[in-house]
Amino acid sequence: MKRIVCLGEAMLRFTPTGKDRLEQAHAFDVHCGGAELNTGIALAQLGHAVDWVSRLPDSPLGRLLAGRLRETGVSIRHVQWAKGERLGLFFLEEGASPRPSAIEYDRADSAAARMHSGCFDWQAIFTGADWFHVSGITAAISASAGAVVTAAMQLAHAQGIPISFDPNFRSKLWLESDARAWYLRHLPLVHTLITSPEDAVKFFGLTMAEPEELLAGLAERYQLKAVAFTFRKGQSVWQNSYGAMLYHANRLYRSREYSVEIVDRIGAGDAFAAGLIDGLLSADAGQAVEYGAALGALKHTIPGDYVRTTRAEVADVAAGANLRVKR
Amino acid sequence: MKRIVCLGEAMLRFTPTGKDRLEQAHAFDVHCGGAELNTGIALAQLGHAVDWVSRLPDSPLGRLLAGRLRETGVSIRHVQWAKGERLGLFFLEEGASPRPSAIEYDRADSAAARMHSGCFDWQAIFTGADWFHVSGITAAISASAGAVVTAAMQLAHAQGIPISFDPNFRSKLWLESDARAWYLRHLPLVHTLITSPEDAVKFFGLTMAEPEELLAGLAERYQLKAVAFTFRKGQSVWQNSYGAMLYHANRLYRSREYSVEIVDRIGAGDAFAAGLIDGLLSADAGQAVEYGAALGALKHTIPGDYVRTTRAEVADVAAGANLRVKR
Amino acid sequence: MKRIVCLGEAMLRFTPTGKDRLEQAHAFDVHCGGAELNTGIALAQLGHAVDWVSRLPDSPLGRLLAGRLRETGVSIRHVQWAKGERLGLFFLEEGASPRPSAIEYDRADSAAARMHSGCFDWQAIFTGADWFHVSGITAAISASAGAVVTAAMQLAHAQGIPISFDPNFRSKLWLESDARAWYLRHLPLVHTLITSPEDAVKFFGLTMAEPEELLAGLAERYQLKAVAFTFRKGQSVWQNSYGAMLYHANRLYRSREYSVEIVDRIGAGDAFAAGLIDGLLSADAGQAVEYGAALGALKHTIPGDYVRTTRAEVADVAAGANLRVKR
Amino acid sequence: MKRIVCLGEAMLRFTPTGKDRLEQAHAFDVHCGGAELNTGIALAQLGHAVDWVSRLPDSPLGRLLAGRLRETGVSIRHVQWAKGERLGLFFLEEGASPRPSAIEYDRADSAAARMHSGCFDWQAIFTGADWFHVSGITAAISASAGAVVTAAMQLAHAQGIPISFDPNFRSKLWLESDARAWYLRHLPLVHTLITSPEDAVKFFGLTMAEPEELLAGLAERYQLKAVAFTFRKGQSVWQNSYGAMLYHANRLYRSREYSVEIVDRIGAGDAFAAGLIDGLLSADAGQAVEYGAALGALKHTIPGDYVRTTRAEVADVAAGANLRVKR
Amino acid sequence: MKRIVCLGEAMLRFTPTGKDRLEQAHAFDVHCGGAELNTGIALAQLGHAVDWVSRLPDSPLGRLLAGRLRETGVSIRHVQWAKGERLGLFFLEEGASPRPSAIEYDRADSAAARMHSGCFDWQAIFTGADWFHVSGITAAISASAGAVVTAAMQLAHAQGIPISFDPNFRSKLWLESDARAWYLRHLPLVHTLITSPEDAVKFFGLTMAEPEELLAGLAERYQLKAVAFTFRKGQSVWQNSYGAMLYHANRLYRSREYSVEIVDRIGAGDAFAAGLIDGLLSADAGQAVEYGAALGALKHTIPGDYVRTTRAEVADVAAGANLRVKR
Amino acid sequence: MKRIVCLGEAMLRFTPTGKDRLEQAHAFDVHCGGAELNTGIALAQLGHAVDWVSRLPDSPLGRLLAGRLRETGVSIRHVQWAKGERLGLFFLEEGASPRPSAIEYDRADSAAARMHSGCFDWQAIFTGADWFHVSGITAAISASAGAVVTAAMQLAHAQGIPISFDPNFRSKLWLESDARAWYLRHLPLVHTLITSPEDAVKFFGLTMAEPEELLAGLAERYQLKAVAFTFRKGQSVWQNSYGAMLYHANRLYRSREYSVEIVDRIGAGDAFAAGLIDGLLSADAGQAVEYGAALGALKHTIPGDYVRTTRAEVADVAAGANLRVKR
Repeated sequence: MKRIVCLGEAMLRFTPTGKDRLEQAHAFDVHCGGAELNTGIALAQLGHAVDWVSRLPDSPLGRLLAGRLRETGVSIRHVQWAKGERLGLFFLEEGASPRPSAIEYDRADSAAARMHSGCFDWQAIFTGADWFHVSGITAAISASAGAVVTAAMQLAHAQGIPISFDPNFRSKLWLESDARAWYLRHLPLVHTLITSPEDAVKFFGLTMAEPEELLAGLAERYQLKAVAFTFRKGQSVWQNSYGAMLYHANRLYRSREYSVEIVDRIGAGDAFAAGLIDGLLSADAGQAVEYGAALGALKHTIPGDYVRTTRAEVADVAAGANLRVKR
Repeated sequence: MKRIVCLGEAMLRFTPTGKDRLEQAHAFDVHCGGAELNTGIALAQLGHAVDWVSRLPDSPLGRLLAGRLRETGVSIRHVQWAKGERLGLFFLEEGASPRPSAIEYDRADSAAARMHSGCFDWQAIFTGADWFHVSGITAAISASAGAVVTAAMQLAHAQGIPISFDPNFRSKLWLESDARAWYLRHLPLVHTLITSPEDAVKFFGLTMAEPEELLAGLAERYQLKAVAFTFRKGQSVWQNSYGAMLYHANRLYRSREYSVEIVDRIGAGDAFAAGLIDGLLSADAGQAVEYGAALGALKHTIPGDYVRTTRAEVADVAAGANLRVKR
Repeated sequence: MKRIVCLGEAMLRFTPTGKDRLEQAHAFDVHCGGAELNTGIALAQLGHAVDWVSRLPDSPLGRLLAGRLRETGVSIRHVQWAKGERLGLFFLEEGASPRPSAIEYDRADSAAARMHSGCFDWQAIFTGADWFHVSGITAAISASAGAVVTAAMQLAHAQGIPISFDPNFRSKLWLESDARAWYLRHLPLVHTLITSPEDAVKFFGLTMAEPEELLAGLAERYQLKAVAFTFRKGQSVWQNSYGAMLYHANRLYRSREYSVEIVDRIGAGDAFAAGLIDGLLSADAGQAVEYGAALGALKHTIPGDYVRTTRAEVADVAAGANLRVKR
Repeated sequence: MKRIVCLGEAMLRFTPTGKDRLEQAHAFDVHCGGAELNTGIALAQLGHAVDWVSRLPDSPLGRLLAGRLRETGVSIRHVQWAKGERLGLFFLEEGASPRPSAIEYDRADSAAARMHSGCFDWQAIFTGADWFHVSGITAAISASAGAVVTAAMQLAHAQGIPISFDPNFRSKLWLESDARAWYLRHLPLVHTLITSPEDAVKFFGLTMAEPEELLAGLAERYQLKAVAFTFRKGQSVWQNSYGAMLYHANRLYRSREYSVEIVDRIGAGDAFAAGLIDGLLSADAGQAVEYGAALGALKHTIPGDYVRTTRAEVADVAAGANLRVKR
Repeated sequence: MKRIVCLGEAMLRFTPTGKDRLEQAHAFDVHCGGAELNTGIALAQLGHAVDWVSRLPDSPLGRLLAGRLRETGVSIRHVQWAKGERLGLFFLEEGASPRPSAIEYDRADSAAARMHSGCFDWQAIFTGADWFHVSGITAAISASAGAVVTAAMQLAHAQGIPISFDPNFRSKLWLESDARAWYLRHLPLVHTLITSPEDAVKFFGLTMAEPEELLAGLAERYQLKAVAFTFRKGQSVWQNSYGAMLYHANRLYRSREYSVEIVDRIGAGDAFAAGLIDGLLSADAGQAVEYGAALGALKHTIPGDYVRTTRAEVADVAAGANLRVKR
Repeated sequence: MKRIVCLGEAMLRFTPTGKDRLEQAHAFDVHCGGAELNTGIALAQLGHAVDWVSRLPDSPLGRLLAGRLRETGVSIRHVQWAKGERLGLFFLEEGASPRPSAIEYDRADSAAARMHSGCFDWQAIFTGADWFHVSGITAAISASAGAVVTAAMQLAHAQGIPISFDPNFRSKLWLESDARAWYLRHLPLVHTLITSPEDAVKFFGLTMAEPEELLAGLAERYQLKAVAFTFRKGQSVWQNSYGAMLYHANRLYRSREYSVEIVDRIGAGDAFAAGLIDGLLSADAGQAVEYGAALGALKHTIPGDYVRTTRAEVADVAAGANLRVKR
């Protein structure tokens, strides 16, 4: 069991019941999630101690979300509670080919977006920590949040705590040029980068090539210990092929490829990150990519933004378990 | 059939299913409402042509709300559509004695709150209008919205269109002192005031007395054509006594008193306003208070923020119909 | 255990979820019921063998209804199946004071309304029967159904099978004058009449008086073996006082009076009839009125048109059991 | 924006929750629809002014349906309200291979089926109209409704308003021979025919051939301005290939072919008709078939009988948008 | 119509709503089922008289289950009611590739598991019976239940009533070695064996070979009148190929192969058994395997553990009906 | 903030949706609870650190329950996980006058009932503990659990940790005589007894008298530091009067009396215990009885077995807050 720190925003998610479009909804199921949180929850389910650092409103909705988080086993002891502020929300519309799923955000000016340098005691938070995970979303939600991320990454790096980073570009939150500049400024602090071939070109200056070459190119150019891509193939909203690739210590690792039936694809990349971190923490790059892909595949089958699983189930899936009814 | 103009904000309302508290909710029913809108809808159901003037985001949630409004028969032709803005939301927690129902607002910076003097063509809107209804909430949601209310009231008054006004004080939106000043500044434009004994004292400078005296006192002091109170008695969340009183042309009118079983009490006052306006428009003050109270009583029995009824049903209830199953 | 025969129509009932009005419904719960059927089901739950005689469409909706009936334990072996016909439907809107519950019927031209003299073999049906129950509704749904009722009553009477009859006047199905004529023509065949003080005056020629006198008056004037009324008091849709009175063999019996909390009041009178018949079949008039009232009271607490209970529970309630949680 | 008139019946649709068969249903979701109405709603969503002409019962169910229609933005100002009549209903059972979906109709003797020549003022209705759309279903529901269709088609034709017609043969409503005679009698009035290769042979006298030839053959034989087919391939209830073909002014147009994941396939053909009419109204046959197919494909993904979309979304889908989550 | 006797346990099944995992469930749908019961229900739907023999607790849950059984038309007259005992339960978690569906049993010490030799009067039960069906599960739930199975099989065999047997091995209920011994001891009493290629090897001593050879091998080695396998192909939880093979009187019969879209695959094998028995009872082996496979395929499309169908629908599906919406 | 230890069983609770009886249920909501757990959760919500000690199955249902418990903030670090065992269940049927609510238990042989002396390290558990709470139910579920309770009480007593005890007699779990003997044997270890006038007579040897006298009598006879009763008046299932009385240090304290509208009365007594313990821990007996009654009253208004509240809300209710909608 390792101790992992995550930093980011959590939101309530509203999904119309019965596959209704938002425009025709009469009731919503409510889930919660957030990029780093989803990763943290998956790590907790693999048996790690996870601290999720964020800011939450001290309100019934904040308590609703906090209860859900405690339920997952993630620790919220470092969460800062904010009176009179709001919780970020988003609305998910589930698609079907040829109509993609769609998300409407209503997250501006949330308690999390108002986090600032005085909110958290990073020295205390990082004491005993084995890993730090953060995504580009947290940097994008506000300038003050971006400053928090920078400070946390610098301290973690200074203390030798490996940092995993997923750029997770959101065009509604910042300009591509601003994001690129931010990413490039912080890459020297990053241990493990989780990205995609498209973003390798768009943000990191590489020329489009085979994924294997892009992974190696990223690792070399930015002196990264590990770089990973996940893949999704197939023109369908309900069924995809899914897998991952990892470049680590001059070696390429590929996961098993899954045919996934999609109950809920939100958070698959975040679940992948958890398996990757778990494997890298135990210095098993092969298992890292396999557990990552298994967690990502499992996530597609589970309602909500994060996985509900056990280490034993992840191992089974990664080993290619059959699909008979388990009795 | 008369033509009535309303001005205000509409919000989506989220209510946990199964009487859950917000903190334990897993699904929400979604309704929509807004003080003036609720009144407008009830007036439409009585057979009037109603224009609801507001600002809505041009987004799936805005379209959800607009569809619901069109469904009610209220015209939204004067609504201004705003790209990239947000819709106000609120969360309703249904109570049971001794725990009152509670509302959490998340309405800051909504498209409606951003309404300003350039948004609407009031000359066109008031052409052919017989009545204008607005509440103090619209004045409170933002300074620019307050300016819109002022301008609209001044123009209506100048054109001889009667104005009904419900202060509807909301302590989360503005200070009591600011509200009082605003109310007093605008009362000279008001034809019909809907308020309560408590507010007669708190905002309008009267000394606590019997309701009859307070009504007469308000009418005299502010030269109002009509002043009305609704009453609610009984220490219970699920069952109340409910009725109304109207002072009009030096005469006091009292409605029948209802024992109401409460499915959803939100919007009862707004429904009352509709019956009141309907009666005053046809110069029947006795019917005004009876239809108002009947609509208010009916509202308690119907899920959502506004009534669903017919003129015939309102007349039946106001006449004291029995409670046998109608077959 | 006795064998009881019932004749009548069964319908599907659609009730909006969440106490919605019909006009705002998005989903409906579906139950089934019918006056005589509801009585028959309650009798089956008391342990009797019950044959329900009717006509059903040979369609998915007909099979839906038939499955529900089999579930209750009532025998449908004498039901005639009709290809290409329709099932009667009704829509229930649940009220709250001061708005009564309301029923919208859509039952015209149903398979049951098309029953006619050739449909059933009454000699076979009545073989071994101990009681026959029918209501005025079956006589009202169509002329041919009325003829079936007449024929069945005549045969039962000829064979000495006691007949219970509940006029259950429905103004949407026939004229008051036609109903009166029909009732009076058939009263000589009736053993037990279940009616109300109002109907004693409206249909049976008595002058309004105390219920006790009306019961005795009806028994004498029409040579009835038993006459019963149920009572409901209290101006509320969710809570009533409920009880019954029976006149039998020159003696008056009164049941305990219940304060009932109303989950679903449809079918309470039909449930009462079952307890009454059960008691009269075992020649215990005191128990008849007590079990009848207990069943009627219980019905108010159970969703759907008919009771779900056991003989033991009815006995407990009739004995005045307390309201503590049963563990 | 054009003004389009539709004529037809609307019904409530009851679908068991949770993919239950009708026989096991305990609750139903309620939607509404009707062939021409579904087309009209899609046209309204593309930005047109649509008048839907029909007859509705003046009852809670009629108001339920009317509210839903107003919600869509279609005008019901020409609807005739009928006291004491019934609304047509249907029950949809959702299938899964190898069990097809199935519909049980309960529409006989509806208010719409009772429409007759005196119900509507066609001169007024067609004033300013740019298009008239009707299907063979309206002709089939009753003789008097058929006469209304004939009169409306004749007047529209006389006034130079283009008429689109979809035979939509329903074997439960009339005989094949009667339908054929009716179709052939009215084809001379038709501008645009929407049908299928099978029906080209069955009703319109062509010999089975390639679809392209059948389209050209129909156009020539009946002097039609436009003829269109939609296609559906694949032995599955949940996934199909879907596309369309249009013959217009001696030229054949083919849409993109969609792989559709099926949430609800009812009304796909009606949605197609809307895109077709929209394109023909703007004299862009290529866009007509593409928007038609895009609307038809979108319809499969949306619960209920009609689409909920925007012009922008239709354009995106017709342009082959990708299936990533839209954020 | 034949009379068939089944012996076994029935359980309530709890399935989380909305495809939730058990760990995140907030509500459960409840169905009921049991291997032999599921077969019996399907036989009842084909028109046979079916007696299901078992033990049920005399409790609300027992009555819930009994009501559901009566609904299906299966007779429960031979059920023994047990005071103060428990009903077996199981929890079904619906999967999606790559996560299989899973069942959690909570059936220990149920009323059915406590059945023993004195519970049933087999002479009476078998009077007039044409077939006896039982599975290995009933033998496995307890030693005393196993003894009941043995006694019933011996008596049926002695009376010349054909016995169908499905081993249905459950590793949580007994050891493989114990199961094998039990199976082999009872095979001489069996007329029709329903099993799989894997089990032919695992339990019945054959060497893996082509299914055709295994079927013939089983029939010969154990002197069986009929042996059948069902097949399932395809690595997906939501879609499979499905079909069956039967060896009867030295001849091999193959069913049509279905592509099934899976709403609920529990009980498919039990539904197959019903079609098989039906065909063998009418001495039509070809129809036996076709109806069996059609019932098995249909079962996949229906929520719950057993089919809801009609003989006509089974015949249609077995004949390869198309997948268009049935209107 | 104090540290409180609780010992007991937790169960899943299944409640039919829509107020259905168990016999007619089609879906169940699932909650969880247990007497001591419910008290512990309420204490956690008041701000205390609570350890709940029990045994849970290491299964999906065990994880479901554990997640719910973590959500409440109670610590489960001392829970022992048991492979292959079962979780206790109960089924709640919600009543309406005159039918009381009813509970069906299915808890025999649960993992908790199998707790035994070797399961827990009480020295560690009690280190730093300020209070120990247990009920008679834990003593009753099995002999080995009874022994665990005895050992824990003895150690707590030896270490000077105050013990609160609620006999909570369950006639289905043990004989009255056995319960009495057990209670009397353990009373010398108890600091605070929560019971009722009836039980004071039935189990503790007092003669029926006024509650005040019984409280004093119990305190004197058994040398208790505190004794409390709660009261419930009114013959209704949906509405009661509710309050409490405490005898402490020779003084009697009475709480405010509440009129409670009952959403869910299960666990009210357990919630009361939490307020009582909280007050006694801070040596404020007046607040103890007021907070206890406020928590008990609040519990009636909240779905599930335990309260969801905040210290501020409890204080408000205890202070007699009004019932207006909180905005």
